[in-house]
Amino acid sequence: MSRVEPRVLKGFRDYLPEVMAPREKMFATIGHVFRQFGYLPLGTPALEYTDILMGKYGAEGDKLLYRFEDNGGRDVSLRYDLTVPLARVVAQHTQLPRPFRRYQIAPVWRAEKPARGRFREFYQCDVDVIGSDSLLADFECIQVGVAVLRALGVEDFQIRLNDRRILDGLLAKAGVSERDTQLTVLRAVDKLPKIGWPGVQKELEAVPGLTSTGIDVLHGFLEANLSQLSANDVDMDVAGPGIESLQQLLQWAETDGIAQWVDVDLSIARGLDYYTATIYETFLGAMPELGSVMSGGRYDDLLTMFTKDAVPAVGISLGLDRLLAGLLELGILEQGAHCTDVYVTVFDEATVSYSQGVAGQLRAAGISVQLHLTPGQKLGRQFKSAARSGASFVVVAGPDERAAARITIKNMKTGDQQDMSLSDGVDWIRQQIQSA
Amino acid sequence: MSRVEPRVLKGFRDYLPEVMAPREKMFATIGHVFRQFGYLPLGTPALEYTDILMGKYGAEGDKLLYRFEDNGGRDVSLRYDLTVPLARVVAQHTQLPRPFRRYQIAPVWRAEKPARGRFREFYQCDVDVIGSDSLLADFECIQVGVAVLRALGVEDFQIRLNDRRILDGLLAKAGVSERDTQLTVLRAVDKLPKIGWPGVQKELEAVPGLTSTGIDVLHGFLEANLSQLSANDVDMDVAGPGIESLQQLLQWAETDGIAQWVDVDLSIARGLDYYTATIYETFLGAMPELGSVMSGGRYDDLLTMFTKDAVPAVGISLGLDRLLAGLLELGILEQGAHCTDVYVTVFDEATVSYSQGVAGQLRAAGISVQLHLTPGQKLGRQFKSAARSGASFVVVAGPDERAAARITIKNMKTGDQQDMSLSDGVDWIRQQIQSA
Repeated sequence: MSRVEPRVLKGFRDYLPEVMAPREKMFATIGHVFRQFGYLPLGTPALEYTDILMGKYGAEGDKLLYRFEDNGGRDVSLRYDLTVPLARVVAQHTQLPRPFRRYQIAPVWRAEKPARGRFREFYQCDVDVIGSDSLLADFECIQVGVAVLRALGVEDFQIRLNDRRILDGLLAKAGVSERDTQLTVLRAVDKLPKIGWPGVQKELEAVPGLTSTGIDVLHGFLEANLSQLSANDVDMDVAGPGIESLQQLLQWAETDGIAQWVDVDLSIARGLDYYTATIYETFLGAMPELGSVMSGGRYDDLLTMFTKDAVPAVGISLGLDRLLAGLLELGILEQGAHCTDVYVTVFDEATVSYSQGVAGQLRAAGISVQLHLTPGQKLGRQFKSAARSGASFVVVAGPDERAAARITIKNMKTGDQQDMSLSDGVDWIRQQIQSA
Repeated sequence: MSRVEPRVLKGFRDYLPEVMAPREKMFATIGHVFRQFGYLPLGTPALEYTDILMGKYGAEGDKLLYRFEDNGGRDVSLRYDLTVPLARVVAQHTQLPRPFRRYQIAPVWRAEKPARGRFREFYQCDVDVIGSDSLLADFECIQVGVAVLRALGVEDFQIRLNDRRILDGLLAKAGVSERDTQLTVLRAVDKLPKIGWPGVQKELEAVPGLTSTGIDVLHGFLEANLSQLSANDVDMDVAGPGIESLQQLLQWAETDGIAQWVDVDLSIARGLDYYTATIYETFLGAMPELGSVMSGGRYDDLLTMFTKDAVPAVGISLGLDRLLAGLLELGILEQGAHCTDVYVTVFDEATVSYSQGVAGQLRAAGISVQLHLTPGQKLGRQFKSAARSGASFVVVAGPDERAAARITIKNMKTGDQQDMSLSDGVDWIRQQIQSA
């Protein structure tokens, strides 16, 4: 067979141990915070029938689906997010409780143009509350978001809030009443952080039915403050409830002590079609150009695409791999793969079993142990392998040690070496590692 | 928009919280055991160029690939296992240490006929040692396998060993020398647990060049014991090293105290093409018909498909979702999604912030808390929601409690109710939960 060049697809990447190890710790931390707020885990397939996903993300989103015909002739797609599959699950499994707080940490796929912090495969970490129209649920998503980022060691970030109803009230005022046109405008506005106002303006000029006066109204509005909004800016019948919501969320953020991480930004639009009220985006203070690392909002109508019940829902989604890229670049997260406490050498073929026994007793004491795999290799080379493994201690268990049921322990930091009985040695190493 | 019927693809499934919660605990346990043996985490893309995967699994495996053309016209496939992507990674990232102990816990996709315990999407939990030809590495995979299953609460299982070199020696004796024919025979023998000898025999009769005498030789051999094997059964030049290996592995299993979970089974063949020496399969004692839950082997030639270096390698892979199905059926694993310790009620709009504050203080103490989302709902209904959540305690934080900075705590098991200062209450609940 001819040799194949080892390579990955554009927009995809390998996570080698030095990045995968801290990434796995992030997953564990995130799951822990989600459970602390009472969210339950859910797993859904990577592949869905295309008609489940299609038409939920807008025309631009639909184009980014990894869509194909499977061996059985079915039209299938890789999931684009975790929200639409969740809506499908809730419609399908009617026994689930309401409100249903669920979390899911899983990869999604989008055939986007790769860029810094933008991958074609990335993990989303989502919490959603299904079946509650209470604004407390919208606020809880903000709380979870703040708690998660802080648990990951991030302090310099801001969750920016807006409400689709305010944008709708604005569009009504600007004379844009047709739903598809409204969504086109929102998707253009969503690109503001990426392409700036000149870029957005250019896209808006191509929108049929939107006058240059309408564009000016929009521009003025996007730079406005919540408190300045009046009937001059927006249709208050449409926008009023959204303005009240945002004011309440800000007030709760104040009493809950998280106001420093939360603010209103009327220019936040979100690209996806399914949002109906509150929307969130989150930016790192030191790296706003990375784009939003945690986004979401309320989507009270999405469920009606699968079931005749009206089921209100709200959620927020952390884009783990974009955040990871940011944290590595900012030095908030350190690369490093070491997970071995002790490296056990293997003197020769005859002492293999003794070394294995020593390793086994250390592991039984909760210690992570690597055993050298080449019996009889010179001790110097074994110590070099040990150093590369990052182990804090090396244990030598040769014929002398075996005869006396002892081990020789070398501290790799200090270079100190001592010999102890096997059982004392295991205890001592455990204490050293626990107190490290 | 017309409504879409919520449904999943055949062979795929949703993991609702009552199954996903114990499944997540399994993932955490398995990762912990892998790290205890010094294995490092790796992440690879779900999608690979098809030529990376094609031709590594045999003709039958290749047919099961989820293969398609992506939006950029690339020929891509969903990964079929974690072993071939690992080989690709090692060939591509030459800076990785040798030996390289890596683990990966991730889904794979195979368009197989769905059956009990057989899904089209399932998680594999793999450890592999790359770059060591030492038999200690083969043995370590067995050790990790035993440790993982026992950590998951499984005691009644058996890892069955064989060696491809013995099978090769047998095929040489049976007059099957052509490599493709050998692999066809091995794939037929691999189906023995599933379709029995009559089924295997039927497949073998269709193999060109295999005589009925050859088939009889095979049959006799598959029921033989390692100790009985002689030059009458196999070509000893080919099989000898394999026989010695198995004997050594059994001896180490003895001294390591894991012999009860390890045995040789000369009928184990493994369907995949890439194995070269040791092979493993693992069956649950109480449910052998489930098929192998943990399989693997040595594949010293696979890397040469990507790089001119000869890189020896060995690994074992736990099929998590099949094992999960077995453990649930056997009652070794219990369904249950409860992850909430405390449910905090919300008396009315005016006390929302006090309830949020109470919930926040409990969470800061490491306690998992659900907040009721509908302020002012009758307390009886709030308690019903609390009971459904599985919380051990309900905290009432109404206007009286707020005025006195106190909380009322109800123990949901005993029905006992008491009122305490907020700080005492948080401490008390934490102690109760820690000692539970």
